[in-house]
Amino acid sequence: MTSVNSNFLKLQSNYLFAEIARKVASFKEANPEKRVISLGIGDVTRPLAPAVVAALHKAADDMGDAATFHGYGPEQGYAFLREIIAEHDYKARGVDLSPDEVFVSDGAKSDVGNFQELFAADSIVAVTDPVYPVYVDSNAMAGRSGEFDGKQWNRLVYLPCLKENDFVPDFPKTRPDIIYLCYPNNPTGTVLSRQALQGWVDYARREGCVILYDSAYEAYITDISVPHSIYELEGAQEVAVEFRSFSKTAGFTGLRCAYTVVPKALQVSDGKGGKVALNGLWNRRQCTKYNGCPYIVQRAAAATYSPEGRAQVMDVIHGYQRNAESLRKAVTGMGLSVYGGVNAPYIWVSVPDGMTSWGFFDHVLNNTALVCTPGAGFGASGEGYVRLTAFGSPADTEEAIKRLASLS
Amino acid sequence: MTSVNSNFLKLQSNYLFAEIARKVASFKEANPEKRVISLGIGDVTRPLAPAVVAALHKAADDMGDAATFHGYGPEQGYAFLREIIAEHDYKARGVDLSPDEVFVSDGAKSDVGNFQELFAADSIVAVTDPVYPVYVDSNAMAGRSGEFDGKQWNRLVYLPCLKENDFVPDFPKTRPDIIYLCYPNNPTGTVLSRQALQGWVDYARREGCVILYDSAYEAYITDISVPHSIYELEGAQEVAVEFRSFSKTAGFTGLRCAYTVVPKALQVSDGKGGKVALNGLWNRRQCTKYNGCPYIVQRAAAATYSPEGRAQVMDVIHGYQRNAESLRKAVTGMGLSVYGGVNAPYIWVSVPDGMTSWGFFDHVLNNTALVCTPGAGFGASGEGYVRLTAFGSPADTEEAIKRLASLS
Repeated sequence: MTSVNSNFLKLQSNYLFAEIARKVASFKEANPEKRVISLGIGDVTRPLAPAVVAALHKAADDMGDAATFHGYGPEQGYAFLREIIAEHDYKARGVDLSPDEVFVSDGAKSDVGNFQELFAADSIVAVTDPVYPVYVDSNAMAGRSGEFDGKQWNRLVYLPCLKENDFVPDFPKTRPDIIYLCYPNNPTGTVLSRQALQGWVDYARREGCVILYDSAYEAYITDISVPHSIYELEGAQEVAVEFRSFSKTAGFTGLRCAYTVVPKALQVSDGKGGKVALNGLWNRRQCTKYNGCPYIVQRAAAATYSPEGRAQVMDVIHGYQRNAESLRKAVTGMGLSVYGGVNAPYIWVSVPDGMTSWGFFDHVLNNTALVCTPGAGFGASGEGYVRLTAFGSPADTEEAIKRLASLS
Repeated sequence: MTSVNSNFLKLQSNYLFAEIARKVASFKEANPEKRVISLGIGDVTRPLAPAVVAALHKAADDMGDAATFHGYGPEQGYAFLREIIAEHDYKARGVDLSPDEVFVSDGAKSDVGNFQELFAADSIVAVTDPVYPVYVDSNAMAGRSGEFDGKQWNRLVYLPCLKENDFVPDFPKTRPDIIYLCYPNNPTGTVLSRQALQGWVDYARREGCVILYDSAYEAYITDISVPHSIYELEGAQEVAVEFRSFSKTAGFTGLRCAYTVVPKALQVSDGKGGKVALNGLWNRRQCTKYNGCPYIVQRAAAATYSPEGRAQVMDVIHGYQRNAESLRKAVTGMGLSVYGGVNAPYIWVSVPDGMTSWGFFDHVLNNTALVCTPGAGFGASGEGYVRLTAFGSPADTEEAIKRLASLS
């Protein structure tokens, strides 16, 4: 009989957001009169910008006319979008990348999940702790994580990020082959300074590692000393892949567009004494297993770079940033320690002494009908924290703040 | 230093369509006055149906309004689309499937490429020969194909489909774990009778194999004795996954929507004496590495099931079917043997004696400025054939037929 990939059977069965959804559904059933407000899952709530909607309409019309119809597009994305990205997101910040180092896709989750395919099956993987679960689970499926002991995977290298180290991970004792870094960080909302990130780039160059850098939240950076791209750091093109997304930048969570930068200078060992560039391998992977992001969606993404589109999109981001500021103040007012939320849409709250993160989740849900995300769901070092997100409407955020005040 | 997945380095460097593109570009440069018509790559040319465009406009407006905005959707697809699919594509044909056995995605290429992740790394894979390259290359990347000897991979089980066996593959001597079947077939345009497909289902049940059944071209079936779905056959839900796409059904090659059916009855060995259902594992894979098909695209797909949308879409298919019929006649008139093209948009032409498939490709290109696809690009058993596609406009197809007549 055909056999399963046994690595799948090692995965934890309770996925974080599914467990939250179960608890919320159960609360709603018991309290039908209460309106639940989610400060939990990281989804946006504001509609698409008018310039984006206009681009969708225009592109839909293109698709309805034989003269302007678009069938299969390039798997790597249309040149019109790759060129804008290279120009606006990189060249404008002093980073020299060519459009064929930019691969457009349907989402950072897909790219982050799939990119590990390019590496040897026995590669050692390092992740921060707490961590976005996709980095861990996609490697677990590929057999790189070892066994799960109830708290951690025994073949992963964990880089704890705690208030004790200011949420800046220390270099690991074991040299990893692949290092996942996400800054501004999900879930903690913290950032790395230019100096700290340069330290990781230097480490990777010295030790021969590849950094998979997830900067899906870069649009939320307000502090000018915080790098938006890892390529702002010296030598990063030799060691880092960067993942970006329009999801949180332009409200594309339901529209699906992202991109991954694979610099041509980035090489790994071919296992035979030579080197091989990841750019060509990712291109091959995408051409074999992917058929490109929809034309209409790429046109919508391009519209976020027009002066009008950019202003509209930034306006939405500023709204979320104001939410984050209000939430930070409210939680601080409850006497709790708060991290993140300044250069990121995520706020990381240290729960009251003696409570677990799931205990605090239950406490908040049962007393205020607010949903947060228990930090323990992001890894062992997330215990003792919860994540709040700033993606609600201003009205919901205001209401949430009132309810939080009643809790303290 | 970090090491590459060495399986990637075993892949053939010249991908079929890239090589064709190179030759066509070179021809165009040498013959700038000639208008090249492609009967090669399998892309549609007719615009989206008006009902589909209207659905895109409506959905774009939904996304621009906070009250109707859609953020992250279900990774498996929206219920509205999964339900229509279960009802129209299956129940209407006497197949009882529940909507949660249907997984909507951005393309059959993605799903076909990714599905192998669920199986053990040492699984034995069978493919027809000739074959759609994605089945082979995705398994080669995962290390299941062994070594490439210049013609074939030494760990794959090949099922030759030739005029000598009426393009119906014989059961292999070595029992495979996974069998890829594509009917109506790409590239040969041939079909399996109900009886022949039942034979494969029975074989899979007897031998404990999983069939990955690609029926991306089912909308082109005209013969009522040919099954549209493998699930029309007794017992198939225990052994088969089915891949379907809106690409060739409704011209979605640039819009990107497809679905994969994973029946709950389909189980494989868990390697520990028990069994495990693939439905839950595919769900986990998609939830981990995919974020769902865009809301607007799913609304567009749903519009193809409305009475109006269905009529418009079938009208386009009928046009392609007429092209296929005309091309079949024209090539038959050249004195060549022709297969397929009746229940499929592909026509498989036996090239003149003494010519190779690439030789005939060059001959046709140089003398008529027409592009076909050399059968050798689809595998060793494709040598001696070329593929023509029926996706051109009526005018281009008519012109192509005139040029073919001048060649004979």
